[in-house]
Parts: sequence; structure tokens; C-alpha cells
Amino acid sequence: MQTVYKPYKKDFEFSYAFGAFPTIELIKSQPQKVVKVLVSSAYREEGAETLTALCNAEGVELEYNDHIVNRISPKENCFVIGVFNKYVCMLDGAKSHVALANPSNMGNLGTIIRTMLGFGVKDLAIIGGGADILDPKAVRASMGAIFHINFEYFDSIEDYKERFDGRDLYPFMLGGEFALNTLPSREKKPFTLIFGNEATGLDESYRGVGQSVVIKHSNEIDSLNLSIAVGIALYEFTK
Amino acid sequence: MQTVYKPYKKDFEFSYAFGAFPTIELIKSQPQKVVKVLVSSAYREEGAETLTALCNAEGVELEYNDHIVNRISPKENCFVIGVFNKYVCMLDGAKSHVALANPSNMGNLGTIIRTMLGFGVKDLAIIGGGADILDPKAVRASMGAIFHINFEYFDSIEDYKERFDGRDLYPFMLGGEFALNTLPSREKKPFTLIFGNEATGLDESYRGVGQSVVIKHSNEIDSLNLSIAVGIALYEFTK
Repeated sequence: MQTVYKPYKKDFEFSYAFGAFPTIELIKSQPQKVVKVLVSSAYREEGAETLTALCNAEGVELEYNDHIVNRISPKENCFVIGVFNKYVCMLDGAKSHVALANPSNMGNLGTIIRTMLGFGVKDLAIIGGGADILDPKAVRASMGAIFHINFEYFDSIEDYKERFDGRDLYPFMLGGEFALNTLPSREKKPFTLIFGNEATGLDESYRGVGQSVVIKHSNEIDSLNLSIAVGIALYEFTK
Repeated sequence: MQTVYKPYKKDFEFSYAFGAFPTIELIKSQPQKVVKVLVSSAYREEGAETLTALCNAEGVELEYNDHIVNRISPKENCFVIGVFNKYVCMLDGAKSHVALANPSNMGNLGTIIRTMLGFGVKDLAIIGGGADILDPKAVRASMGAIFHINFEYFDSIEDYKERFDGRDLYPFMLGGEFALNTLPSREKKPFTLIFGNEATGLDESYRGVGQSVVIKHSNEIDSLNLSIAVGIALYEFTK
């Protein structure tokens, strides 16, 4: 049966990488997940050869189809769409992790993933139901970095802790026990940095989950943007 | 003559704060700049009293007008619009600054401004023509923080240096002389952190402008998101 490609919905078993750059990252990093690459005729002229060669090398079907590209692409000009089957990965227990509880802003999520890759932390735990990490908005904001990291869903922080027993956990929250810049020196062992979502942060139950940390800021703002907070924490923990 | 309010264009002498929260920040921080507040009837029910009281206290005209609100608001639901005259401020030479050369992404700009306020750096130099810091997208992304900082435009970094002679300047660029986390300790004096735009960064001419700095990251990404880089730099310089 022919799949009918429509604008993305969360319950799809596949998702889209919009744009040539994320699509190329997709094919290079997760070739076995690619269903096909859709291209609009407007892309023929510029840079299409690289993409065509890559698809040929990896045995990926490339279809020129203006109608479908227009139907499923976001409103901006988008000439290339990588269609791929959604997947999950197993986190690596020997490595450091970022854990995000109920992330809700897909743009922030993508920026965080790109920043993680920048600081060499490549394992992301998503805590609590609801987030759809392979949403095209997250894929796009990550600029394809999402295809280079491991991510796995956990129902609760308890489930995560059960799987990864004995790690150093650092929940970031207002009123955290330690300011990030005064944190006692750590042993060189894998850590997990835990962050709440954009609107609510982590709830009080996280205060007992490891060593709580706060990034001090003035009282002129309610909180730092989530992706900024994760970026600062990753910088400090990996430097 | 009655002003006709239309969707924002850069050459307007006024701009818009979309949403109740940024509008309230506008009225509290820059009451003399407010032209009027436009409200849609859908807002009557919830929380309109606070806004009405604030407008009365500051002598700001509040107009219920669904037609105009719908015409000029972005596509999301937006019930409150603060119309204000655009302005510039003088930077404070005794304080630390952030300088952005040709910023092009208004969402990033707003996030940076909010982060500056969070780290107590309240003076922003915009280098090079073109940027329109009071664009509604920047106002919105700053969540009103923009009304709490000073900002000033400079044609070139040379013009900026002429005005603020003898400061410590830190251009952030790939291949910067010092890694941020190994920067020699500084005297306690005002600093200026300089960043290029999202696409191109700072050009080579900035290497001689003060002490160039790099935030080290893996070669798996081309560069950190601009707002993340500014956030990390502000954290490190103010901690």
C-alpha cells in the first residue's frame, strides 16, 4: 500500500527532516531509517548533485514531487524533505547524560541537542510522557544534530534512576542547594544534568534527586531560557 | 491625523509589544514611550483589570478594538498590543556591555537581551547598520526585558571604540586567542563582549580588537547557537 504523506502529526510512525542540510545529516548518520527523500523541482539547479550522489551511495530513493513537498513542508521555502521512520536508542551508561523532564518547546529541544553535540554529551533522556523528540521542528532546530545523539524515553525519573543506578545526578532548579559556579569539585565520573520544562521547571520532588544546582541570575527575570541554562551547565560541567 | 496601524514594518517610527506580559513591562519601564494599548474583546474576561489599572495609573490610553488587533497581530492568538514610539538610549560607559555585530535573527536577539538582564549586563551596542532592535519579534522573545536595558547603534566597531576608549574588549570568534575557560584573570573593570551574527560570526578584522576568545566545542557542530554562546560568556564573565 502506498503511504500518503501529509503534514506531520505526532502519532505518525515516520517524521520529516525539512531542508537539504538536515536531510544530508539524516542520510549520513541514520541511512537505515530513511524511507525516501522528496525533492521539489526548484532544487534541481542548486546543489542537487551532492544529494543525488549521497542517495545513490546509500541506496536511498529520491523522488521529485512538487505536490507532496508543498503539501507537507512548513510555510517557508523548503525544497528537500527526508522522510524517515521514527526510532529510539539505548542510552550509554558509561557516558554523561542530559535529562529533560517534559520538554514542550521543540525549537528549544533542537537547540539543546545541537549544544549537547557541541560539548560532547551525546545521550539524552526524556522524562515523562508527551514529548515527541523527532518532531520536525526539533529536527530542524537541531540542524540535524539529533541524528548524532542517543535518546530514550522514561516514564519517570525513578525509572531512569533504576536503570542508571549510582550516577551523580544534578537537578537544576530555582533555589538549588549549590550555585553552579560554587559546586564542589567532582570525581571524573559520568554525570546527569536534569532540567524541567520551559514553563514550570522541575517540581520540588526533584530536590532529593541528587545534588540540586541553581544558575544564579538577577531577580529582574523569572528564569533563564531553558536552552541557555542547559548550555551554561554543559559548558561548566565539561570544561 | 489618525495613525493607521498596520502590520509592522521596519521603517515605522513606532513598534508593537505583542501580548499582555511584554505590554505590562513596556508601560512600567517606558511609560512615556507608550502611544496606546490595543485590546481585543476576548481579553475582557481574564486579567484585564491589572492592565486597565496600570493604564489608568500611567495615563495610557486603552482601546478595545478587535479589528485592529487582528490586523496587526502575528498569527498566534494575541489579545493585547502595546503600541510605542521607537527610541534609542545612551550606553553607560561605567558599566559592562554586550556588542552584537549585525544581528539578524530577532528571536535570538530577544533571548540574548533577556539573558543579559539575568546576568546584570544592561547595555547593548548594536554594531553596523541594519538591525532593528525594537522589531516586535525581538520585543516578544525578550519577554519585555528589552524595556529594561540601554541600547545604542554604532556604524562600526571603530565608532564604538572611539566613544568607549580604554575598555577591555573581548571579541568571540572561532580560533580566538584564548579559550573562555582559560582566560587569564581580569581586573575588576567594565568589559565588552563582542559577537558576530548567526551566519558569519565576526570577520578577521576583529582579531585585533582586544583579546579574542573562543568557546571550545567539538567539531561535530559548525558553531554554537549565538544566544547560547552569549549566555555562556555572560555566565563566565559575571560569576
